[in-house]
Amino acid sequence: MRPKKASETLATSTKLVLPNDTNPHNNLFGGSLLAWMDVIASISAQRHCRRVVVTASVNNVSFEKPIPHSSIVTLKAKVSRAFNSSMEIFVDVYVENQVSGKMEKSNEAIYTFVAVDQNGGPIHVPELIPETEEEIKRYDGALRRKQLSLILAGKMNPADATELKALFLGDSEKA
Amino acid sequence: MRPKKASETLATSTKLVLPNDTNPHNNLFGGSLLAWMDVIASISAQRHCRRVVVTASVNNVSFEKPIPHSSIVTLKAKVSRAFNSSMEIFVDVYVENQVSGKMEKSNEAIYTFVAVDQNGGPIHVPELIPETEEEIKRYDGALRRKQLSLILAGKMNPADATELKALFLGDSEKA
Amino acid sequence: MRPKKASETLATSTKLVLPNDTNPHNNLFGGSLLAWMDVIASISAQRHCRRVVVTASVNNVSFEKPIPHSSIVTLKAKVSRAFNSSMEIFVDVYVENQVSGKMEKSNEAIYTFVAVDQNGGPIHVPELIPETEEEIKRYDGALRRKQLSLILAGKMNPADATELKALFLGDSEKA
Amino acid sequence: MRPKKASETLATSTKLVLPNDTNPHNNLFGGSLLAWMDVIASISAQRHCRRVVVTASVNNVSFEKPIPHSSIVTLKAKVSRAFNSSMEIFVDVYVENQVSGKMEKSNEAIYTFVAVDQNGGPIHVPELIPETEEEIKRYDGALRRKQLSLILAGKMNPADATELKALFLGDSEKA
Amino acid sequence: MRPKKASETLATSTKLVLPNDTNPHNNLFGGSLLAWMDVIASISAQRHCRRVVVTASVNNVSFEKPIPHSSIVTLKAKVSRAFNSSMEIFVDVYVENQVSGKMEKSNEAIYTFVAVDQNGGPIHVPELIPETEEEIKRYDGALRRKQLSLILAGKMNPADATELKALFLGDSEKA
Amino acid sequence: MRPKKASETLATSTKLVLPNDTNPHNNLFGGSLLAWMDVIASISAQRHCRRVVVTASVNNVSFEKPIPHSSIVTLKAKVSRAFNSSMEIFVDVYVENQVSGKMEKSNEAIYTFVAVDQNGGPIHVPELIPETEEEIKRYDGALRRKQLSLILAGKMNPADATELKALFLGDSEKA
Repeated sequence: MRPKKASETLATSTKLVLPNDTNPHNNLFGGSLLAWMDVIASISAQRHCRRVVVTASVNNVSFEKPIPHSSIVTLKAKVSRAFNSSMEIFVDVYVENQVSGKMEKSNEAIYTFVAVDQNGGPIHVPELIPETEEEIKRYDGALRRKQLSLILAGKMNPADATELKALFLGDSEKA
Repeated sequence: MRPKKASETLATSTKLVLPNDTNPHNNLFGGSLLAWMDVIASISAQRHCRRVVVTASVNNVSFEKPIPHSSIVTLKAKVSRAFNSSMEIFVDVYVENQVSGKMEKSNEAIYTFVAVDQNGGPIHVPELIPETEEEIKRYDGALRRKQLSLILAGKMNPADATELKALFLGDSEKA
Repeated sequence: MRPKKASETLATSTKLVLPNDTNPHNNLFGGSLLAWMDVIASISAQRHCRRVVVTASVNNVSFEKPIPHSSIVTLKAKVSRAFNSSMEIFVDVYVENQVSGKMEKSNEAIYTFVAVDQNGGPIHVPELIPETEEEIKRYDGALRRKQLSLILAGKMNPADATELKALFLGDSEKA
Repeated sequence: MRPKKASETLATSTKLVLPNDTNPHNNLFGGSLLAWMDVIASISAQRHCRRVVVTASVNNVSFEKPIPHSSIVTLKAKVSRAFNSSMEIFVDVYVENQVSGKMEKSNEAIYTFVAVDQNGGPIHVPELIPETEEEIKRYDGALRRKQLSLILAGKMNPADATELKALFLGDSEKA
Repeated sequence: MRPKKASETLATSTKLVLPNDTNPHNNLFGGSLLAWMDVIASISAQRHCRRVVVTASVNNVSFEKPIPHSSIVTLKAKVSRAFNSSMEIFVDVYVENQVSGKMEKSNEAIYTFVAVDQNGGPIHVPELIPETEEEIKRYDGALRRKQLSLILAGKMNPADATELKALFLGDSEKA
Repeated sequence: MRPKKASETLATSTKLVLPNDTNPHNNLFGGSLLAWMDVIASISAQRHCRRVVVTASVNNVSFEKPIPHSSIVTLKAKVSRAFNSSMEIFVDVYVENQVSGKMEKSNEAIYTFVAVDQNGGPIHVPELIPETEEEIKRYDGALRRKQLSLILAGKMNPADATELKALFLGDSEKA
């Protein structure tokens, strides 16, 4: 399988916040944004592996400030790293200032998808090649996040999580 | 403000997976489940603080196995810990075996909501009192998760995350 | 088939009234509530018979007072009586006071579902055992309601509806 | 207020059963049909009184046979009788044979709406004038149904329901 | 195939503008109206040919003035002309004055549908017989519109569009 | 008002065809695509004028071949020409081959939006500057289309439509 560049997996969707997507405060409903991000992340994952993909996990979804109804919202999803059969995807969400047109980042989320065959079993996906500084930073962080999630799920011994240990031991080890 | 017991914040919703909620494989669409969990978590948060609440973050959402259309799905949300103005809520999702009626856990997620006043500014919420063994375990883990998310957001120095450090230093420190 | 207790058929769903569910007066739209009740009643019926069920009739749906948007609404459905292949289900709807958390009953409805086989033909369902005072009262009323609907549909002679006759002839017959 | 003829209150809607409206058996979902009937009945009620109307009750909804997806369904609603501030509306549902185009009746329901003022209080509506044989039959039955619902709600003494008593006493009184 | 009268293809749908159908200005959302017109036009086309139909093109959709939420909107669709396998359908949209009940035309659109067989290939449809003055006018215009769309698509030489040429050459040719 | 380049008005949205968007043949429902195009065209128009916009007309929407469920669909909208207060927008729709990832054009549509003030009255919009060959071609055609729609609406004398006349008189005038 030919490795793919991160830029080849970019999926973009620009949306209007309609009444149907709002919560009682007339802001974008968290549940709608979560569903929108799931779709665009799945498209990015499909562009990476060209197979059927299913959501495996969602993490680090932050909602910094409310997005008012009628806003123009742009979602950008890009695979940050590929493992055996899973892909980590970053979704960045931007809101557009109605007058200046300037885009401001409002949310970020990390979705993981798994490529599956006809029977729903996992199958291999191509490697990902990060190129930009941000792509490389996210690529590097992906392994740490994977270890963390294995530990939290009780499937890895913290002592074996070398990447993560380094993060916390930094100071003391030098001492 | 009177502290509340975790059990007082329980919110339950039983749903049927209708065509509108399915992905192209006729299984429950990840985005729909994320939206369902957001709603039930917000109800649990409201029951805790009796104020307007907004989604602040979502984490640890796992999708273990596909949930086929027509399934009966039950979501249970309960506040696991309250901080100044934020509440961490666990959502557990169960699928019911159509013949035996036995409920099997299929998903878990951690949502954080913030209580806000009329202007959207954060306001204090009551403390949470965990009672059962699981409630206490989740209550204890909440601080560790909060530190972790602050570190990942670059808002806390790993060296100050005493709870987390203990997790990784366990063996080596004893040595 | 093992008879089932009414309590085993209880299905509960707590919902938030979102913009999508409101009528032009910003109250819960009658049609949405009817659809919600249909789903939760069908889940209760499935829990009773563990078969595919289809809506057969709806009756006595009352809308006492408007339910404003953003309300937390809880639906409780329970089978009140089982006949050969049909089940009568009561759905009670409660609205939660946002400040006190007190639940007040706002609606009630009676749905009838039929259990069907692969070809859509009716199949037998287990008997229902009522236990509480209210379950017994609703169980007793079910036969009267069934006779009434047969009469109204022209499928029963009023003179044969012994249960119903008693209701109207009570005083005069004694005279 | 000028009395209105039943024919002036007719509201018609022809719809296509789309995937979004189906249950897991690919037939029209009962909840969708209930919502559709609610809307068309409310339009009929508005045409009668030209005021804001809210659903007061739903009764006698029958689902005779499943309506498969892709079906062309026609709903016809007409006020059957007006009381002080409430209107009883019959909704008849027809399914169209795809080849012959013949319309076959598949469902019937009776909705009651109340006309309300700005504060949600009930206001007077015009009288209804039935003209056809069916309109007269439904007009006459409306009083009997109103008495029945008052009795079932415990708001009327069965002995006072003269219309209803006649129905059950018919044979025996002659004797 | 028996030719059909235009009046046999009439399809009518009366709808209420619910919050779900509105744009941020609380008026009927253009996209919702386009979808509503597509459905009613497809029903009209099916009534003409009694076959599966798919949308082929949409033209001349005009939005004269905003339709406020809660409006009662009536769509009327009628086949204006049938060609080999395609049918041109006019959709007229009316808004009802809430007080007087008077219907005012607010929109008009021309949809074209094609009848298809199991494999999606085009199949013959019956001829259409226009009767009223308006039906005849729309029938006559249909050929001109077809030529125009062929020219705009580069599939016809303007010099061969005899109907259209007449329209523009009228005055000058006489001169 | 600063004139804007066509490229500044580009709005892109990539979507997944979910069950909710399909017709009975499991292909993308025409009405859904029309609604999607309306939204993305309105975003393009807003990017041009930074004002509230409303749909004024829709034309030349072609549906060449069915788009199966689960397809990845990309919509691209760009203003083709600005008049006093109206903007013509082209929407191009592409379907992505699931294996090769190659994008194939499947639909095209022309929407017109009007910029409005608080009271819904039309207001001036900036001029549009076309740059690429295709942008210039569409810019030039826009005037012809505007004349055509004025003629069809009976608001312009065909003899005054100089642009259009040229199209049809080409050969004969040379003669």
